[in-house]
Amino acid sequence: MDEIAVDETGQADLADPVLVEGLPGVGHVGKLAAEHLVDEYDDDTTLVRRVHSEHLPPKVTVEDGLAGLSSAEFHAIETEGRDLLVLTADHQAQSNEGHYRLADGFLDVAEEFGAEEVYALGGVPTGELIEDYDVIGAAPGEATVERLEDAGVEFRENEPAGGIVGVSGLLLGLGDRRGMETACLMGETSGYLVDPKSAQAVLEALEELLSVELDYSDLQDRAEEMEEVINRIREMEDQQSSMELPGDDDLRYFG
Amino acid sequence: MDEIAVDETGQADLADPVLVEGLPGVGHVGKLAAEHLVDEYDDDTTLVRRVHSEHLPPKVTVEDGLAGLSSAEFHAIETEGRDLLVLTADHQAQSNEGHYRLADGFLDVAEEFGAEEVYALGGVPTGELIEDYDVIGAAPGEATVERLEDAGVEFRENEPAGGIVGVSGLLLGLGDRRGMETACLMGETSGYLVDPKSAQAVLEALEELLSVELDYSDLQDRAEEMEEVINRIREMEDQQSSMELPGDDDLRYFG
Amino acid sequence: MDEIAVDETGQADLADPVLVEGLPGVGHVGKLAAEHLVDEYDDDTTLVRRVHSEHLPPKVTVEDGLAGLSSAEFHAIETEGRDLLVLTADHQAQSNEGHYRLADGFLDVAEEFGAEEVYALGGVPTGELIEDYDVIGAAPGEATVERLEDAGVEFRENEPAGGIVGVSGLLLGLGDRRGMETACLMGETSGYLVDPKSAQAVLEALEELLSVELDYSDLQDRAEEMEEVINRIREMEDQQSSMELPGDDDLRYFG
Amino acid sequence: MDEIAVDETGQADLADPVLVEGLPGVGHVGKLAAEHLVDEYDDDTTLVRRVHSEHLPPKVTVEDGLAGLSSAEFHAIETEGRDLLVLTADHQAQSNEGHYRLADGFLDVAEEFGAEEVYALGGVPTGELIEDYDVIGAAPGEATVERLEDAGVEFRENEPAGGIVGVSGLLLGLGDRRGMETACLMGETSGYLVDPKSAQAVLEALEELLSVELDYSDLQDRAEEMEEVINRIREMEDQQSSMELPGDDDLRYFG
Repeated sequence: MDEIAVDETGQADLADPVLVEGLPGVGHVGKLAAEHLVDEYDDDTTLVRRVHSEHLPPKVTVEDGLAGLSSAEFHAIETEGRDLLVLTADHQAQSNEGHYRLADGFLDVAEEFGAEEVYALGGVPTGELIEDYDVIGAAPGEATVERLEDAGVEFRENEPAGGIVGVSGLLLGLGDRRGMETACLMGETSGYLVDPKSAQAVLEALEELLSVELDYSDLQDRAEEMEEVINRIREMEDQQSSMELPGDDDLRYFG
Repeated sequence: MDEIAVDETGQADLADPVLVEGLPGVGHVGKLAAEHLVDEYDDDTTLVRRVHSEHLPPKVTVEDGLAGLSSAEFHAIETEGRDLLVLTADHQAQSNEGHYRLADGFLDVAEEFGAEEVYALGGVPTGELIEDYDVIGAAPGEATVERLEDAGVEFRENEPAGGIVGVSGLLLGLGDRRGMETACLMGETSGYLVDPKSAQAVLEALEELLSVELDYSDLQDRAEEMEEVINRIREMEDQQSSMELPGDDDLRYFG
Repeated sequence: MDEIAVDETGQADLADPVLVEGLPGVGHVGKLAAEHLVDEYDDDTTLVRRVHSEHLPPKVTVEDGLAGLSSAEFHAIETEGRDLLVLTADHQAQSNEGHYRLADGFLDVAEEFGAEEVYALGGVPTGELIEDYDVIGAAPGEATVERLEDAGVEFRENEPAGGIVGVSGLLLGLGDRRGMETACLMGETSGYLVDPKSAQAVLEALEELLSVELDYSDLQDRAEEMEEVINRIREMEDQQSSMELPGDDDLRYFG
Repeated sequence: MDEIAVDETGQADLADPVLVEGLPGVGHVGKLAAEHLVDEYDDDTTLVRRVHSEHLPPKVTVEDGLAGLSSAEFHAIETEGRDLLVLTADHQAQSNEGHYRLADGFLDVAEEFGAEEVYALGGVPTGELIEDYDVIGAAPGEATVERLEDAGVEFRENEPAGGIVGVSGLLLGLGDRRGMETACLMGETSGYLVDPKSAQAVLEALEELLSVELDYSDLQDRAEEMEEVINRIREMEDQQSSMELPGDDDLRYFG
C-alpha cells in the first residue's frame, strides 16, 4: 500500500467546492458538525474518496462483524448554496510527521475536486459549562479574518492559547502555502463532554458563509441526550453530597 | 538489508492455498493455533520463507547458544483438505508504520504462493474464565460473514469493541483491498493466561472451513498443564483467604 | 510539502555573513539573544527565508486570530561590522532524526548566503543564581577555541557535561564536517527562569567577535521585569516561612 | 548528511581482519574490552573510519571545550596474530530501525576491509557479584559454537534469556545473513557496576581465538579502582546497618 492510498468510491462534479473538515478532537465538535452535514444532505451526498494510510491507526474497526480498515472519507455534497467536499474520519494521525503527510494528502484530494477554500471545524476548550456558544476563528489571511468577523465569528487575542494542533491546524497552514483560503471555526465547549450544541454553533456560522440552510433537530436530540447524562451525574453528585454536606448545583467537575 | 527481507528457505507447490496467520497476542491464542497446525502436519510441512525486517525487534534470540535474528516464518502445508500457508512469528511489529509495512510484505508472500484467502487467528478477551469457548468472527465482506456463520462462528454487534489491532487486523483490511477474501477468527479467552483451549476452539472452526481434521492431544496436554497452574493459584488463594475469611472458589482475579 | 520547505520571503546580498542561531533552550538565552539582534537592527533586517518542516510541531500558532504554521526564520542583517544571517524559531525539532535533518537544512540555507562561520547561541544551566555571567564556549576546531578565548570566552574541562543537544549542537558538528568554522557560545544561567542578563552576556561576547556594537536597554528592561518576578516570589516565600520559621532570603528553589 | 556518513580518517591494509565490536552496554564490558584493544596496540592502531548518523544521539560531546559530533569509530590494528578492525562508540542507536540501519552500515565498512569474521563483545547480567568470570557465547552457526566451546567459551540453554538486543545482536544476525562467521562473547557481570574484570575475561577468550597476547595491567588498575568504590559502599552500609542491626557483609544490593 502507498504511504497514503486514495481509493475512488464514487464520482461527483462539484462547482467551486469548499473543503469542510471535521476530525475527532475537543468535545468532538468538528466531527459532529461534519457528520451532521453529511447526514442532512444525505440524498445529495456521494462518498467520493476513502483514504487509507500507515499514519492512521494500524487496525480495523468492527461493527456487527464487519471489519473496516482505518480510513478518512471525502463526501461530495451538492447544496442549495456552495458545493461541499466534507472530510470525516474516526482518527487523527499517529505521529508528528503523519499529521503533515496526511494533511498534505487531504489537500491533494481537495485540489483534485477544485476546492480553493478550506474550513477546518473544531472545538476550543473553556473548562466550564457554556451558556452562549461563541465561535472562535483563526485564519492565516487578514482578509479571511475580516470576512469571518462579518459573519459573527470572534477573533481573540490569545485564543486558542496552544495554537491549533493536528490535521486541522495543518490544513490552515499547508493550505495557505498552496494559495488556498483557509480558516478554522472553533466552537466553545467545556472540553469534558461530547458537545452537540457547540457543533450547532459552528454550523450556524458556516450557514452564512456557505449560503446553506440546515435543520438541527438531530443535533438537538443528541444535545438532549447529553443533558440527561449531565443531569444524572448532577443527581448522583447531589445524593453523594447530601450525605456529607448540603447539596449544591455546582457542576464544576463536569463542565 | 531491505526494509523487509524475504529469505527463501524451501520450496513448495501449493494449490489454491489459504494464508493462516497466528502471531503473539491475547492469550497467545493465534500463535498456539498456528503452531499447532505446523506441528500436526509436521511431515507435510516445509518452511518456505523467513522474513526479517527493521520493523521487528532489533535483536537475536538465543536458544542453546544458537542465535537467531528476529523473524516471521511461512510454512507450506499440504493437508487432506485445503493447502495452507501458515504464518508464525515470536513478535509483532514495533511501530504503527511497521504494522502496515509488515502486513503488506506478508501479503506479498501470500500472493506469491497464490493465496486468495486469509484467516487471521487470535483471541478476544472476556475478563472471566470461559466454560464454553465461542469463536467470534470479523470480516470485511458480508458474503464471508455469512459463510463463517454457517460454520458456527459468531458475529456480535460490538465485538471486539476496540477493533482488531496489529498485523491481524491489517491482513483483513489490506488483504481486502487487494481483492482477497479475509476473515479473523477470535477465540474467547480470559485474557489473563495462555489459553490452549481457546486455540482448540479456533482450530475446530477452521476444520470445517478448510476441510481438515486435527488431533488435539498436544493442545489438551498444554491445557492440562495450564489447569494445574490455575489450581495451584486457587489453592494458594484458598489458603490465604482461609486465614482471613471462609474460603471461596472465586477465581475472579485469574479469569 | 517537502520534508524541509524553504520559502523565500525576501532578498539580501550579504558579504561573507556569519550564521547566528538562537532557538528555544535553557533560560531561552539563545532565543533572546538572536531576537535582540533582529530587533536592534530592525531597519537593516530583511526576513529572507521561512522554513517549514514535518520535523517541526504539527500545528499553527494563533496570534490575534492570525494563524501561522510552525516555522524557523532566517533574517539577513547588515551591520556596521560583519553581515549576519540570524536564525530564529519558536520550536526545536520533534525527533532525533528531525534534529539532524533540520540542522542540515539550515546549513544549506546558510551556504546559499555564503556563510562560512556559525555561532550557535544558548545557555548552560548552573543550578544557582548567577552574579557574574560568564560565557562558556565549545567548538570543534582548536584554532576557533583560541580565537574565542582571546575574546574572553571561557572553555572548561567538563562543561557542558551532557554535551550540546539539538540543533545548536548539530550546527557545530555538521557545519564542521562541511568545512565551516563553528562555535557555540553559552551564557551561564540558573536554568530555572528566562534570563535576559545571560543573553546580554552572550551578545557582549559576540560584539567583539563580529565587530558590532549593541544597545542593551531592551534586554535590561526585560531583566528588570524578571527581577520583579523573582522579588515577588521571594516575598511570598518570606511570608510563608514567617508563618512557620524565621524568614530567610534563601532563593535556592528559584535560582 | 547521508543517513549513515562514513568519513575516511586514515588508511590501513589489513589481511583477513576480524571485526571486533564493543559498544556501551551491560557493565560496559564490551566497550571496556574494545577500548583496551585499541589502547594496548596503540602504536599499531590507525583510526580508519568515523561514522556519523542521524540514528546516533543529536548532539556534540564537549571535552576541554572541543566539540565532537556523535560518532562510532573503526580502528585498524595490526597484531602479532590476526589483524583486527575494532569498532567503538559512546552511543547505541536511538530507535529500533536505527539499530538495524547502523548495524548494516557497520557491516558495510567491515566488508570494505575484507572482514569475514565478527566478534561482538558484551556483558551478561547475573544480578550477583561474580567470583569466577565465565564467558558466555552465542552464535548463529553450529560450527562456530563448537569452535568457541573449544576455546573455553560456555554455551547455556537459556542464556541470555532476553536475547541480545541492539547493534551487537544485529551484527550476529545480519552478518550471518551476509555469509560472515559471527559470534557474541559475553562476560558475566553483576550488571550494577562498570566491570573491568569481566572485560578481561572476554579478552582472555579472544586471545586464544585471535592468537594475540594482551597485557591487562591497565584493566587491573581500573578493576582495583572499582574495588575501592565497592569497599567504600560496603563500609557505608556497615555503618548504617550497625546503627540498626548487627553489621553484615551482605553486598546483595551492589552485586
